[in-house]
Amino acid sequence: MLAQNENQNDDILSIKSKNTPPSLIRALLKVTQDEKIISFGGGLPNPISFPEKELSISMQNVVRDFGSKVFQYSITAGLPQLREYLAQRYNTKFNMGITAEDIIVTTGSQQALDLLAKVLLNENNNIIIEKPGYLGAIQAFSQYNPTFNPIELENDGLNTDKLEELLKNKKIKFGYVVPNFQNPTGITYSQEKRDKIFELMEKHKFVLIEDDPYGELRFEGKSLPYIGGCKNQYSIVLGSFSKIITPGMRLGYIICKNHEVLKAVNTAKEAADLHTNIFSQYVIWDYLMNNDLDKHISKIRELYKKQSSAMIEAIKKYFPDNIKYTVPEGGMFMWVTLPEGQSAIKLFYKAIDNKVAFVPGDPFYVNEKDVNAMRLNYTNASPETIREGIKRLSEILK
Amino acid sequence: MLAQNENQNDDILSIKSKNTPPSLIRALLKVTQDEKIISFGGGLPNPISFPEKELSISMQNVVRDFGSKVFQYSITAGLPQLREYLAQRYNTKFNMGITAEDIIVTTGSQQALDLLAKVLLNENNNIIIEKPGYLGAIQAFSQYNPTFNPIELENDGLNTDKLEELLKNKKIKFGYVVPNFQNPTGITYSQEKRDKIFELMEKHKFVLIEDDPYGELRFEGKSLPYIGGCKNQYSIVLGSFSKIITPGMRLGYIICKNHEVLKAVNTAKEAADLHTNIFSQYVIWDYLMNNDLDKHISKIRELYKKQSSAMIEAIKKYFPDNIKYTVPEGGMFMWVTLPEGQSAIKLFYKAIDNKVAFVPGDPFYVNEKDVNAMRLNYTNASPETIREGIKRLSEILK
Repeated sequence: MLAQNENQNDDILSIKSKNTPPSLIRALLKVTQDEKIISFGGGLPNPISFPEKELSISMQNVVRDFGSKVFQYSITAGLPQLREYLAQRYNTKFNMGITAEDIIVTTGSQQALDLLAKVLLNENNNIIIEKPGYLGAIQAFSQYNPTFNPIELENDGLNTDKLEELLKNKKIKFGYVVPNFQNPTGITYSQEKRDKIFELMEKHKFVLIEDDPYGELRFEGKSLPYIGGCKNQYSIVLGSFSKIITPGMRLGYIICKNHEVLKAVNTAKEAADLHTNIFSQYVIWDYLMNNDLDKHISKIRELYKKQSSAMIEAIKKYFPDNIKYTVPEGGMFMWVTLPEGQSAIKLFYKAIDNKVAFVPGDPFYVNEKDVNAMRLNYTNASPETIREGIKRLSEILK
Repeated sequence: MLAQNENQNDDILSIKSKNTPPSLIRALLKVTQDEKIISFGGGLPNPISFPEKELSISMQNVVRDFGSKVFQYSITAGLPQLREYLAQRYNTKFNMGITAEDIIVTTGSQQALDLLAKVLLNENNNIIIEKPGYLGAIQAFSQYNPTFNPIELENDGLNTDKLEELLKNKKIKFGYVVPNFQNPTGITYSQEKRDKIFELMEKHKFVLIEDDPYGELRFEGKSLPYIGGCKNQYSIVLGSFSKIITPGMRLGYIICKNHEVLKAVNTAKEAADLHTNIFSQYVIWDYLMNNDLDKHISKIRELYKKQSSAMIEAIKKYFPDNIKYTVPEGGMFMWVTLPEGQSAIKLFYKAIDNKVAFVPGDPFYVNEKDVNAMRLNYTNASPETIREGIKRLSEILK
């Protein structure tokens, strides 16, 4: 029946609902349900990052301590004591000089991307994204029909010459970057690039959204300050508990000293879901009050370091020399580049036949097809499985 | 600093962010923090509806039974077994003939309103709302800049003559109604009105969104079938756990047999927050498996019946004869109409001085000011307090 009525549905659905691409990743990963397939395709944190026992205790604590409050409607901006905690943590680590009033808790950082696009973008506004860029952001922004200006990502961050040129020629509404262990490439911005981008941001007065879900997962080198880091009213920093405590509870946050922007986000959030799950906010807050988060994170880092090393070593051993790859200092992903002209999507189906999966590069680009690159995730397999998977992958690269 | 930069922020913020009115209710209710004020202003369910002890047990159950799954990323449409449960419940109660595939779990029904508006509305599309209508829906829809066509709500539902006239003259994208114990009026649609609206829906092929957060809270009369009730591809039914288990966990859902619409909603939801808090979905599902929901709901009904009776009786006793009011058969609200020409907003400040609060009618209308009506909530005070509050209110009505 529905097939016959396609025209009627075309009439029902909005134009913008057709602008949002469904995630190719999810479609591809359906192919990988076969248990014999070793998958580097997902983007899931390792379950070691979920402090199950401690969270269970916190659940009981908050029901006991706060009773019906944890089940009732709550305020849109998020639990005040959780925002207090975050302000203190960012002030201690990054000297950001923020208060709870500069923070709005969101339903995962995916919601932060949606709300920011909603309150910032008019149709056809120019925005900057990384090339390749995070596909969840591309999806969220696409809904509001902007003009994407992808800028090449080099080994140490955005190509700042191209950024400068673009800023001279176009009025840019916002730029979106993942400065630490970027998704999909695993690349981290150098101090030099950070300084240069901040200089351009001050000069050209464009909003910079720094999305930092992986920053805490550094296993090599030393932590660098944010680019904008809330130093001016154009700077927005996003964070998340998804990679360090649990993604299932969908808790992210927006940090921004520009209260006109935050107020607009707050109004949009009220219309989007009233407020983020308050029970989960209480639980995470109680967990943070009663446990050593940094100690917990160090366990995740240690594991991811082992897993990424296993992947790098196996790549060195098995891959042909004409394959390039990034060497991440943290996070969950690395990026493999095939020789010019090869298509990772075409390779994907061969890989599935050889019982190994990855994400082909295409969905991380706005307008390119048959890209010669792929994303590999290393956080969900043992070093042995990683070696075996890379070996299988190498067999179809020859 | 921010005040000086207002022009720059005007430049930063999108046009549509200015279309969304921040909730007047929340602003007004800030005035009512004073503990001596008896508030009929909120829209909070009574904490009796939160089965705290049982939910605490379910939290432990799901961590024990499903381990890391309850903390990991999950699918966008929502926990399959929770959707199964809902399909069965609606089939049993309303003979709707639905399956889990016809349901998407949302982050509260507020998110359902946002997502549906996003996937259905192009700018300036004509939509129908009730007059007065639910302000959360007005807020959500406003973001997508439709043309609102409010239709008078009579004692037994929409004025169907006006509806028919409108449908003859304009192409309508969707209509939005709350057929049971409407917010703000407490009105329930009669069977006659339901039949007539369904007839018009079939004839004019407009989407009808039936939002039903209060349907289970009937304490008088008998339950009526939905208007569209998923009988055709234009029918969408919304439901929620907020008023019967907990609003804090933000769990609502969309039921719709038109899978083109659901697919668009699913894609929009993926971009909006990836998926709804999966831990909470497991907890609610486990609660439903191990407890008698209907028995729990009957306790809420019994309480709300007492509270609404206390309010009606007090109104009969204390209010002057020229004040009209609705007599709800369920839900959480009633609607009081002052004599023509009086402004409930002006009365609000007098009421605060006399230590009683309500919500003035204005925010439930799209384009009207100084409306002569107010919403009263009765679910959060004891019968004695309700009597005292109505007495205080009557003192300023004279």
